[in-house]
Amino acid sequence: MNKGFYAIFEDDQKKLVMIRILTLFTLFFVLFSCKNNPTLDDFEEKNIDKEQKDTVKSTNFGIVIHGGAGTILKKNMSDSLEKAYQEVLEKAIRKGHEILAEGGSSLRAVTETINIMEDSPLFNAGKGAVFTHDETNELDASLMDGSNLNAGAVAGVTRIKNPINLALEVMLNSEHVMLYGKGAEEFAVTRNMELVDPSYFYSESRLRSLKKVIKKEQDELSSVHSASFEDPYSKDSKFGTVGCVALDQYGNLAAGTSTGGMTNKRFNRIGDAPIIGAGTYANNATCAISATGWGEFFIRSVVAHDISALMEYKGLTLSEAAEEVIQRKVPALGGDGGVVGIDREGNVTMEFNTAGMYRAHMNSEGTLNIGIYKK
Amino acid sequence: MNKGFYAIFEDDQKKLVMIRILTLFTLFFVLFSCKNNPTLDDFEEKNIDKEQKDTVKSTNFGIVIHGGAGTILKKNMSDSLEKAYQEVLEKAIRKGHEILAEGGSSLRAVTETINIMEDSPLFNAGKGAVFTHDETNELDASLMDGSNLNAGAVAGVTRIKNPINLALEVMLNSEHVMLYGKGAEEFAVTRNMELVDPSYFYSESRLRSLKKVIKKEQDELSSVHSASFEDPYSKDSKFGTVGCVALDQYGNLAAGTSTGGMTNKRFNRIGDAPIIGAGTYANNATCAISATGWGEFFIRSVVAHDISALMEYKGLTLSEAAEEVIQRKVPALGGDGGVVGIDREGNVTMEFNTAGMYRAHMNSEGTLNIGIYKK
Repeated sequence: MNKGFYAIFEDDQKKLVMIRILTLFTLFFVLFSCKNNPTLDDFEEKNIDKEQKDTVKSTNFGIVIHGGAGTILKKNMSDSLEKAYQEVLEKAIRKGHEILAEGGSSLRAVTETINIMEDSPLFNAGKGAVFTHDETNELDASLMDGSNLNAGAVAGVTRIKNPINLALEVMLNSEHVMLYGKGAEEFAVTRNMELVDPSYFYSESRLRSLKKVIKKEQDELSSVHSASFEDPYSKDSKFGTVGCVALDQYGNLAAGTSTGGMTNKRFNRIGDAPIIGAGTYANNATCAISATGWGEFFIRSVVAHDISALMEYKGLTLSEAAEEVIQRKVPALGGDGGVVGIDREGNVTMEFNTAGMYRAHMNSEGTLNIGIYKK
Repeated sequence: MNKGFYAIFEDDQKKLVMIRILTLFTLFFVLFSCKNNPTLDDFEEKNIDKEQKDTVKSTNFGIVIHGGAGTILKKNMSDSLEKAYQEVLEKAIRKGHEILAEGGSSLRAVTETINIMEDSPLFNAGKGAVFTHDETNELDASLMDGSNLNAGAVAGVTRIKNPINLALEVMLNSEHVMLYGKGAEEFAVTRNMELVDPSYFYSESRLRSLKKVIKKEQDELSSVHSASFEDPYSKDSKFGTVGCVALDQYGNLAAGTSTGGMTNKRFNRIGDAPIIGAGTYANNATCAISATGWGEFFIRSVVAHDISALMEYKGLTLSEAAEEVIQRKVPALGGDGGVVGIDREGNVTMEFNTAGMYRAHMNSEGTLNIGIYKK
């Protein structure tokens, strides 16, 4: 044996060590990559303490939803249409309530509840989204987690079946909060989300609404473009956004909002629904809010965050804060609409300054409360 | 003469009356149309009482600007580069100060001051906008009028030389607050605004920054996309947004922000600059704020509105409120950046939690205060 042999032996050992290091590095990388692509399951795994899950059963969890506010009048509503709205509202809120009752997160409850309203043609969100001036559908949505102030939002997407799910993906799996249009859809593809054909959103009744609004615009001989909030099913006009807020058994708040925006909108207009602070806000320190209204006024009033700030800094209750903003501040600018909200104690608000708001609330005892018109 | 003659006479009179009514209607329509297309001149005409203009000279008007915050270090800065920054900051703020001193509105001062920074290649806004991942430039801007909470914002525009001017047009001449990309540009065309060729924003140094960020991303063997805040002129990384807040002689506050966003950004990401409440907020009851920072954290913290709310509801001074948000709340989430602000008494803040922030302030006496690094 000469020195050369030992050298070879040493080299082999080095190789082995190198291989081991590389294997470890690869394993670490794979693990690390997985951790960087969390799903809602991973989120719950990480955020819900299992022991806590089995022992702590807070009695004050709850969920509130809205399906839009506006001049919703009993006289314009057939019994069958009213029943149809009530059925979807009940189906949606029962879904979220079931998730909460079984110990799921408020984030999941909000997302899956909104999915049911997005999949219904009755509401101006997802399947029932209204048409833009160019006969396309541009959808907006946002979502916020009150436990860590994480948020996700998308605006102007045209091929996403459930925009709230993409907002969730943006929140959990991107470094960003807000993505727009084609870019947001490219991101969806990287997350293996299915894109739907834009024709998925086609609806004859919504198209009739668009043509009605355009005709009205022409009849008024106005050079000023005007988008509108037409209801294709009745003589009402309404802000048809859908939204949900929830408090889970672990004291975590979440809020989400999804919309098709205004009928006849142009210029890639963005409303309040995808704006964190305006249409959606959640903070465990205060409340979770989802708004539905004339978006421009809700952006200028930073509605959702203002309600939270009135609670946090001025000591108002959720009801007082919502009333202050919806009954005084927004109307003072000339705007109208409403909000649903829930606070960390499970107190809720369903405040609106219009003739009606599709809404429902379920508390931890399972008491269901559905409303459409002003009481 | 028979009855027929009188009938003709009567018909002629009817015609005359009809012609008069039509003429009046046309005049009214023309006047009405003009009123519906206000310019900044019309805005000042309407909002500034001329007698007030001649008599009331408030002594506490003022203006504050920023040109981005970040790890801006003296050791990475050549004397000539430092001087170049100081010169643009001084030119910009002197322009706004002159407008205010001559009795112009805070809205005009903010817009025209920002124009000077947008036209400089040194700042990440307008001419100096950074590149997206696809080697394009997507610009965002927003503007708010504290006297009536009117606001305008554009995001993702690629052919607008001065995005803050388009935000102003959206505010004054559309029914909307926020427009995106191509739609916003279509609106600009209806307002007779000139579109520039996207090559206007081409800059070799910004492209080098993009390539550097992409290389770094590849070197890190990371599958996770990462946008960044690279400074092409030094070794620093910074949030290169520009912004301005002003109080005019009539007690009206205004705020504006303009940016090119993050180098290597993808998916049509929208940051905080065009979000009312996050990057920009103005309210005569409290203050005017323009932010520059890691947009995602500033959106989640609703930074600009939170500072206003801390003043309005908790009684904090502007400085205390800005310190609370920038030194405690934003860093608690992991974010960094800064704000400039001015309140209704002319008190100002230039708060940042980074190594530096390009900034300048001028009060009604004309005292100029320019800064780059932390004191």
